[in-house]
Amino acid sequence: MSFNSFGRVFRFTTWGESHGPALGVVVDGCPPGLKLREEDIQTFLDKRKPGGSKFVTQRKEPDRVKILSGVFEDDRTDGPRTTGTPISLMIENVDQRSKDYSDIRDKYRPGHADIAYDAKYGIRDYRGGGRSSARETAARVAAGAVAELALQSILGADFSIRACLVQMGEHKIDRGNFDWGVIEDNPFWCPDPEAAKAWETHLDTARKAGSSMGAVVEVVASGVPAGLGAPVYGKLDADLASAMMSINAAKGVEIGAGFEAAQLSGEENADEIRIKNGSPHYLSNRAGGVLGGISTGQDIVARFAVKPTSSILTPRRTVNAQGEETEIVTRGRHDPCVGIRGVPVGAAMMALVLADHVMLHRAQCG
Amino acid sequence: MSFNSFGRVFRFTTWGESHGPALGVVVDGCPPGLKLREEDIQTFLDKRKPGGSKFVTQRKEPDRVKILSGVFEDDRTDGPRTTGTPISLMIENVDQRSKDYSDIRDKYRPGHADIAYDAKYGIRDYRGGGRSSARETAARVAAGAVAELALQSILGADFSIRACLVQMGEHKIDRGNFDWGVIEDNPFWCPDPEAAKAWETHLDTARKAGSSMGAVVEVVASGVPAGLGAPVYGKLDADLASAMMSINAAKGVEIGAGFEAAQLSGEENADEIRIKNGSPHYLSNRAGGVLGGISTGQDIVARFAVKPTSSILTPRRTVNAQGEETEIVTRGRHDPCVGIRGVPVGAAMMALVLADHVMLHRAQCG
Amino acid sequence: MSFNSFGRVFRFTTWGESHGPALGVVVDGCPPGLKLREEDIQTFLDKRKPGGSKFVTQRKEPDRVKILSGVFEDDRTDGPRTTGTPISLMIENVDQRSKDYSDIRDKYRPGHADIAYDAKYGIRDYRGGGRSSARETAARVAAGAVAELALQSILGADFSIRACLVQMGEHKIDRGNFDWGVIEDNPFWCPDPEAAKAWETHLDTARKAGSSMGAVVEVVASGVPAGLGAPVYGKLDADLASAMMSINAAKGVEIGAGFEAAQLSGEENADEIRIKNGSPHYLSNRAGGVLGGISTGQDIVARFAVKPTSSILTPRRTVNAQGEETEIVTRGRHDPCVGIRGVPVGAAMMALVLADHVMLHRAQCG
Amino acid sequence: MSFNSFGRVFRFTTWGESHGPALGVVVDGCPPGLKLREEDIQTFLDKRKPGGSKFVTQRKEPDRVKILSGVFEDDRTDGPRTTGTPISLMIENVDQRSKDYSDIRDKYRPGHADIAYDAKYGIRDYRGGGRSSARETAARVAAGAVAELALQSILGADFSIRACLVQMGEHKIDRGNFDWGVIEDNPFWCPDPEAAKAWETHLDTARKAGSSMGAVVEVVASGVPAGLGAPVYGKLDADLASAMMSINAAKGVEIGAGFEAAQLSGEENADEIRIKNGSPHYLSNRAGGVLGGISTGQDIVARFAVKPTSSILTPRRTVNAQGEETEIVTRGRHDPCVGIRGVPVGAAMMALVLADHVMLHRAQCG
Repeated sequence: MSFNSFGRVFRFTTWGESHGPALGVVVDGCPPGLKLREEDIQTFLDKRKPGGSKFVTQRKEPDRVKILSGVFEDDRTDGPRTTGTPISLMIENVDQRSKDYSDIRDKYRPGHADIAYDAKYGIRDYRGGGRSSARETAARVAAGAVAELALQSILGADFSIRACLVQMGEHKIDRGNFDWGVIEDNPFWCPDPEAAKAWETHLDTARKAGSSMGAVVEVVASGVPAGLGAPVYGKLDADLASAMMSINAAKGVEIGAGFEAAQLSGEENADEIRIKNGSPHYLSNRAGGVLGGISTGQDIVARFAVKPTSSILTPRRTVNAQGEETEIVTRGRHDPCVGIRGVPVGAAMMALVLADHVMLHRAQCG
Repeated sequence: MSFNSFGRVFRFTTWGESHGPALGVVVDGCPPGLKLREEDIQTFLDKRKPGGSKFVTQRKEPDRVKILSGVFEDDRTDGPRTTGTPISLMIENVDQRSKDYSDIRDKYRPGHADIAYDAKYGIRDYRGGGRSSARETAARVAAGAVAELALQSILGADFSIRACLVQMGEHKIDRGNFDWGVIEDNPFWCPDPEAAKAWETHLDTARKAGSSMGAVVEVVASGVPAGLGAPVYGKLDADLASAMMSINAAKGVEIGAGFEAAQLSGEENADEIRIKNGSPHYLSNRAGGVLGGISTGQDIVARFAVKPTSSILTPRRTVNAQGEETEIVTRGRHDPCVGIRGVPVGAAMMALVLADHVMLHRAQCG
Repeated sequence: MSFNSFGRVFRFTTWGESHGPALGVVVDGCPPGLKLREEDIQTFLDKRKPGGSKFVTQRKEPDRVKILSGVFEDDRTDGPRTTGTPISLMIENVDQRSKDYSDIRDKYRPGHADIAYDAKYGIRDYRGGGRSSARETAARVAAGAVAELALQSILGADFSIRACLVQMGEHKIDRGNFDWGVIEDNPFWCPDPEAAKAWETHLDTARKAGSSMGAVVEVVASGVPAGLGAPVYGKLDADLASAMMSINAAKGVEIGAGFEAAQLSGEENADEIRIKNGSPHYLSNRAGGVLGGISTGQDIVARFAVKPTSSILTPRRTVNAQGEETEIVTRGRHDPCVGIRGVPVGAAMMALVLADHVMLHRAQCG
Repeated sequence: MSFNSFGRVFRFTTWGESHGPALGVVVDGCPPGLKLREEDIQTFLDKRKPGGSKFVTQRKEPDRVKILSGVFEDDRTDGPRTTGTPISLMIENVDQRSKDYSDIRDKYRPGHADIAYDAKYGIRDYRGGGRSSARETAARVAAGAVAELALQSILGADFSIRACLVQMGEHKIDRGNFDWGVIEDNPFWCPDPEAAKAWETHLDTARKAGSSMGAVVEVVASGVPAGLGAPVYGKLDADLASAMMSINAAKGVEIGAGFEAAQLSGEENADEIRIKNGSPHYLSNRAGGVLGGISTGQDIVARFAVKPTSSILTPRRTVNAQGEETEIVTRGRHDPCVGIRGVPVGAAMMALVLADHVMLHRAQCG
């Protein structure tokens, strides 16, 4: 993966800044003949859209996607279909609030990429973080929608990707309560209704205090066939690690038992296998569906840690571009827990990695 | 990264199986004029070499590296120097013990890649795990040696990469005891002498019981300039995540505070900045030296979780290639804690990622 | 190069069809701090713009470029400057004449990509050739403008890229008349005023007969330092060959003496070297500025053959999508000699290859 | 393609110098289950082997290939089969004649890469040209053998690649005499027995005069299905152009009618289509089997021009590394017409490009 492109045969390239006229993505290598309408992509974008509750940024962006190329409709195609050529998707920025950015322009916000971008490029679009803003993830979600639709078309009805929040701050869900059916019933994509209630209180407290909270996102892909992954440097889990770590504010990634695996014995860790309906059936899934970098047919389980939003109201010590010590308070419309909106982004990255690997696999193995 | 190659401008490709005649690596894109002798690489390989203590596999492999190309010496070059052309390194396998592999040939070892490779390729070199064996990491370490020497040459004396084991099983080191100076004084690369003693007992117990333990490896790069990293899909931390997760038995990767960051408040997490000696000086390093995917000049800190060795003496339920249920006991010469030998491998991957990014950065930014 | 992307560290990705709403390009990896305004790019596009004379298509496209990202201006930057992040450029299609495409929809135009796209994808945007249309080259020219500006900034005033038409049909220029100063004085970018006059007659005759003519384009880069090129599969001339051959209607590429080199003796072919002003000075340039895939400091000279436009008024035998034999006449607004508009496209591809190699070279060699 | 690697999903990386201990190639992404023995590859290498007649270099290299990885045999596999993991192939250098290289060390041979390598890297293995030597092509031919076997396995018996010499110096074959059956009956891979006789005289004259001759190689792939190629920067013909131009001494590449297409009218050039046996049947093949960068099902026809060997006995003016003017005579065992041995190399590159595209196509289009 290189610069602003990701993937090998199913590949996408994103562009755009937080406060530029638009942002977008070019999806290249998509299979031809796939039904694809703007509203199919919009459904995915709406999940990531800001402004949905008091727990996410109040910036109002409709995030309306336009398909500019790569799709064609005539009376033989039964609706717009992909042509196999690049699919260009664009989302216009609407609510770039006119405000004074002089503070960010000169002072580096701790925990943000400001100082790093200046060190690298010597210049930076400081409006809302420019290219380093999490608004870039809208483009990933749009690309991920195409990837997921392609996967559904290739892998069929058993295939699905689901994502949720399994930890907010130090508060983890109770795995005994886990229910995918409830994740849309609370503003956190939380699969544990009890935890969701508690989180509401915790996050409200943090929000009112001008503080912020971290979180852990879990992404699960089901119905993925065994055999995906390209050892040894294109391992499925290595690609997932890269994909998830590239998401804004991510600080850790794990597969299956993840860091907990370090604490298990060999007996506890290795998933035993039986036969069920004529196929291998694993008695547990500590591996997270990946062995030796290749999918086993079990659920692919990835998790990533999201740090607390660095934009907070508490004054923080920092320096400015002139090399002087100063303080900063980051006002603006920020997510008190950016991990929440990371949920659909994680799902998108899972789809994008899998689409690439499904296609890589059939390239080599037919 | 793709198949068996890693990197963009400093790139390497590994090949070879556990029980084939040899394994090796081709390093491409190395800067010319770098002093490079076989013994310079050998020093790194000797750290990873099997057979060093009772806590690692008893397979006796000298892991003697040969340079087959890419280096030239005449009376003007003051010893062998890289020419900028591909550096081919080969390590012959010596101690492929002649044994009966019929058990592995037919039965899938739980926790191993056997079943996944068969699902993908329909054929597999089952001798010692074939391509999925951790012997492949010898090739990475050889490539990593070249990368580290190139980095030392470019970045100078302040640059270093160090790695250690910070957790074995559930036993973490005491950070108060941390001392890089002692890691070679114990067989675990442990920076806490107290912990090292305790681990000896724990691991001996596990080993004698025919069991195994997991571990967590920490890798730290110092003296890395600010500005490395290629947002947004070639972020320095995303590449480190891919690099570390590609190591055999790795199940999780984190940068800086990592998963703990999810539990911190915004105030605790974002590293404040002051000026020291005219340069930005951070009051903490929760970021692990990376903001927005770009290095900040702080130490780069990466950690990865290694699962317990899956080759254990306890009988485990599994299936065979004929689709029948059976049991397996994995005899052979295995590491009771494969994380130990993962330490120099993690250091090598850090060097390889950084070498690529140092060169990518000067490509774009001069 | 892969699918719709070209380049390694200076890379671009194009998208769009002849009759879609727009087409565009994302340029990634551009050095930061480069002055870049829309009008700087427009200058290059205007050279390729259709509708300039009776010898090119009468389609009226203003080809007005918009910069959507990657450039930032504030009071410190002295005009818009590149930020090192992706530069998204868009050109809206304006004059997609509403016409009946049913002929092209069902019948394959000989010499066109219609039948090949259908064989590959099973679907195709047939309006004006869709993705296979030479309108895609507008995106290359826009990207090439950025590349050329980057090269001028890095290589300085001695650097230039010039392109011209050296042959139309069987009529070659007289090299004795070669004058770069006159190429904008005729509608053919012809450096030989005598030839230009003759071509006018030849092409007018062909045009009125509903026929078309082929051509040969020559592209020359001067002021390119010695040392660019990445042997052995990223050779400068191999990349130029790929770049030029990817241009619509190109059927051959040559460097320096090219195919004529096959007829020379070793004595005639190898350029002898003397010293001039303290530097190597070549007594001829049969090599076209490239030896062993690496630039020598001489002018880089590339040439490509463009086949005659396949859209002609003469009825041609063909088949349709139903597998039946039929005939076709291609009406519409076509270039009688598409090689003319290939001139600025060739120059753009030269700039794009060189920008990538300048950056690749400093990646490896500092 | 980048540095010393070529291909995307069927990829290979070569290494080694003319006078190092060995040279080799790592083939990555090969389909699993393919029968592959050393002798299968050796057959291809033997065609390129030096020392076969007085018309090629008298260096005696057995070019014996060893398979070091990626192939496995047990009693179930019916001979060695590829496992889908990297295939490492090595050829040891045997006849590196001990000679005094001080002349080449200090003086730059006109027409050779000496001066360019020094300009780029500041160091170079000057023995026999080092990395820039055409001995590198042995590695390509070995990789090409694997590619061709993979293609035969996927495409079946109708698929073939053939190559020949169609021009030596200014002497072209008579197309009326073209007969693939005779190319092994003369030392030139010449398909025209009459021309072969004349060439013998011409080349003998040149050889005795210490001079050399250029040539044109033609490569034809038959039985290639329609639909291969990845527009617009991974076009099949663009990849072939890059592949052929990367061969030592190549100065031009053309597809189908090539440069002659520039002289044709639109009517003459565009291949008309009829139906034969229910499939499209072209009445000519000026396109060389490629339209819009995609194969049409016709024969793929590529041609490349090879310059005369630059190592000649005539004294040539040149400069040395100290920047002084001098003269050089290149003694040694050189090919009087290096194009002859380019014939199997061209065939190998065709196979390598097609293998990549067959696999890329099934990645995207299933």
